[in-house]
Parts: sequence; C-alpha cells; structure tokens
Amino acid sequence: MCSEIKQIQQQLAKFAAERDWEQFHSPKNLAMALSGEMGELTEIFQWLTTEQSKHLPAAKKAHLEEEIADVLMYLVRLADKCDVDIMAACQKKLYKNEQKYPIDKCFGNAKKYNEL
Amino acid sequence: MCSEIKQIQQQLAKFAAERDWEQFHSPKNLAMALSGEMGELTEIFQWLTTEQSKHLPAAKKAHLEEEIADVLMYLVRLADKCDVDIMAACQKKLYKNEQKYPIDKCFGNAKKYNEL
Amino acid sequence: MCSEIKQIQQQLAKFAAERDWEQFHSPKNLAMALSGEMGELTEIFQWLTTEQSKHLPAAKKAHLEEEIADVLMYLVRLADKCDVDIMAACQKKLYKNEQKYPIDKCFGNAKKYNEL
Amino acid sequence: MCSEIKQIQQQLAKFAAERDWEQFHSPKNLAMALSGEMGELTEIFQWLTTEQSKHLPAAKKAHLEEEIADVLMYLVRLADKCDVDIMAACQKKLYKNEQKYPIDKCFGNAKKYNEL
Repeated sequence: MCSEIKQIQQQLAKFAAERDWEQFHSPKNLAMALSGEMGELTEIFQWLTTEQSKHLPAAKKAHLEEEIADVLMYLVRLADKCDVDIMAACQKKLYKNEQKYPIDKCFGNAKKYNEL
Repeated sequence: MCSEIKQIQQQLAKFAAERDWEQFHSPKNLAMALSGEMGELTEIFQWLTTEQSKHLPAAKKAHLEEEIADVLMYLVRLADKCDVDIMAACQKKLYKNEQKYPIDKCFGNAKKYNEL
Repeated sequence: MCSEIKQIQQQLAKFAAERDWEQFHSPKNLAMALSGEMGELTEIFQWLTTEQSKHLPAAKKAHLEEEIADVLMYLVRLADKCDVDIMAACQKKLYKNEQKYPIDKCFGNAKKYNEL
Repeated sequence: MCSEIKQIQQQLAKFAAERDWEQFHSPKNLAMALSGEMGELTEIFQWLTTEQSKHLPAAKKAHLEEEIADVLMYLVRLADKCDVDIMAACQKKLYKNEQKYPIDKCFGNAKKYNEL
C-alpha cells in the first residue's frame, strides 16, 4: 500500500477522532460527502470549452487542486472504513479494462465495452 | 509524489495512447467521466441503512472496490492532465481544514465551517 | 406537456438570451451544471441520519427548496435543448419500471432488476 | 402545482407502496438515488464534443430520455417526501437569480455571482 495514502488515512482518522466525528463517518455518509465534493469539482469546468479546460487560469487551477484533494481524501477515508486496498483495486481494474477494451476493437473509438 | 500513484498515471497514459484515446481526455471530459463513476459508487449504498453500509456482503464489497478504483483512476488522470501534485494538494487542504474546523468549535458537531 | 414546465423553459430561455448565455448552454455543459447542482443537494443530507432527513429544520428545508429548484431548472433546460418531452419520457419510464420490477418478485426487496 | 407533476408523484407513491418500498424512501436515500441517476445521465455526454452533444444520434437520445425521466422522478419523489412545492420553489429561485445576475454585470460572462 502506498505509504503516502496510508499517511493521509491516518491523518484523516486522527482529524475525525479529535473532533468526535467518527459518528458521522459511516460508509454511506462518506459516499454522500464524496458525491458533494464531486459536484464542486465538476462546477469548475461546466462553462469552459474543452480547449479552455486544458489551460486553466491560476485561480481556477488553485480551486481545482483543492477539490481534487477533497475528493481524494473522502475516497481514501471510505476505502479505509470499508477495508479496501485502493492500490490493489486499481491494478485489478486496470487488468480488467485491458480485457474489456482490446486495442484492435476500440482504437480511436470511445464506445462503452457493451456497445463495441 | 507517491510512486504507486505515479505508476498508475503512467499505466493510464499508456492505456489511452495505445487506444488513441488522448483526444477524449480533456480535463473537462475527465471531470464528467469522474462524475459518472461517482454515480455508480453512490448507487451501491443508496438503499442501505447506515448500519448495513458498515457490513457490506462480499458481492457489494467487490463492486465497491471496482468503483473506488474507477474513481481514483479518473482522479489521478485528471490531476496528471492538469499538472496537479495530488499529494501536496492533500497536505495543503488538511492544513486548511485544521484552521477551518478548530476542535473546540466543532467537537461532535458536523456543521459546515460557515455555519459554525 | 405540463404548462408550468413549458413556462419555466420559456423563462430560462429568456434569462439566457438576455445575458448572451446561449453560447454556454450546450447539452454537454448543461449536464455538467446539473451535476454540480446535484452535489449541492446531496451535501444537505450527507451527515444527517435517515431519521433526521425526514424532519429537516427550517433553514435546511429552505436550502433544499433552492437546490431542488436548481436541479429542476437545469433538467428542463436540458430537455428543452435536446427536444425531450419530459412528461412523456416519465410515463414511458414508469411503464418500463412496472415490467422491470413486478410486485411478486420485488416486494420489500430493493435489489436492482438485474439482481432479482 | 402542476397537475402532471402531482400525477407522477401519485404514481410513484403507489408504485412504492405496492412493493413495500416506502421503507427505503427516506429523503437521504432519495438524494443518493438521484445522485446515482445523475451519474448515468452525465455518462451519455462524457466523451462527446460540445458540437456532438447538440446532435445526438437516435440511440443516445432515447437513452437520454430515460435518464432525464429517472432524474425527474426521483426529484419529484424527494420534493413530495419533503413537502416542497417544486414549482413555487422554481419561481422563487428564478426571481433570486435575476437579482444575483443583473444583465449589465454578466452579459456574455459565465462567472459565478460571487466572482462578478
């Protein structure tokens, strides 16, 4: 397990315990909080063109950094609470995606695997 | 930067390049894809009680691992494309949260900082 | 088509035209804006228990009314832009749901139709 | 209140009661379900360009109709459960938006009101 992710999980556990917030951190609630933060991240890009999204001005970039951090922190907190090894899960999914999206079938084509 | 996250970013960059998918991976599109995956993660918990969410049966847990992986992968891909150091952003936000949520003001209280 | 929904669509079209905002209201952008507002709605409930969510204090209820309005407005604006008859779509989906979820198969059971 | 929306609310209440699903329909759960459906709607547009989103092929349009219906149904169900007059809420918010976004200040400019 990535030691920096483990460190964040420990910092978040301590942060919650110090504030007696454990009571709020059920997986269900953490999924909702994650969802709320996702909305804030999406909002940054909603009126931008594709091209503008590739060249964010400094203020928007700083805002994006915060929202990426918020999403990551709730995600690793949820993984911690549900005993999910987040890195192992990624490698497993990467492998599965290789099978679902063979290069010859989906080169240059963004169709979902069940539409290929 | 966490070497396991850097590794995932490289694997995702290779996966996209091999399939000529770079054209689809603007930050705007990646934010939307992240949003789509968030919906799938939320769905796992929507009808569960708080208590049930703490004790997921094996099938739901396996499904959760996949969705956590999907969200993380799009998140680190977006960070990569926008040149965001995801770990530094987390440490910065953790520090900011310490200021926004002083223990004495929010012990046992889930109010948002602007409602304290 | 519901005349009150048609009226909202006309008010929103006028609001956007007056501000030269048509340029931002592609279906893609409207879907993202809808997503952003969804996050704000979810946030209202994230730390509440199921029981608390049934008895919202006045301030939270007022906030919920605003977020429900925001989501509805972007939804009917998206339907308008994509030429979707929103009421006809609902009746069609209600009928489809009756087929997907026969009473005898899913009484008291929240499983998704493909898990029944 | 729009009689077609009232009709949908009654159909949904009957659908839930017939299946003994009332137990799952707390506002908290409905907000999560709404969130899940939002993800499915977003997914339709994620890899499309802005231009492509304006000219959806028949299959994608049919899919969009279903997802718009799903989002609307959970939204009006949530409004019903929380005793929110959805149409009155929209008119109130439209008025508030007129104040937040005066034409002379935001003509051709998509900035959020607190950035104007």
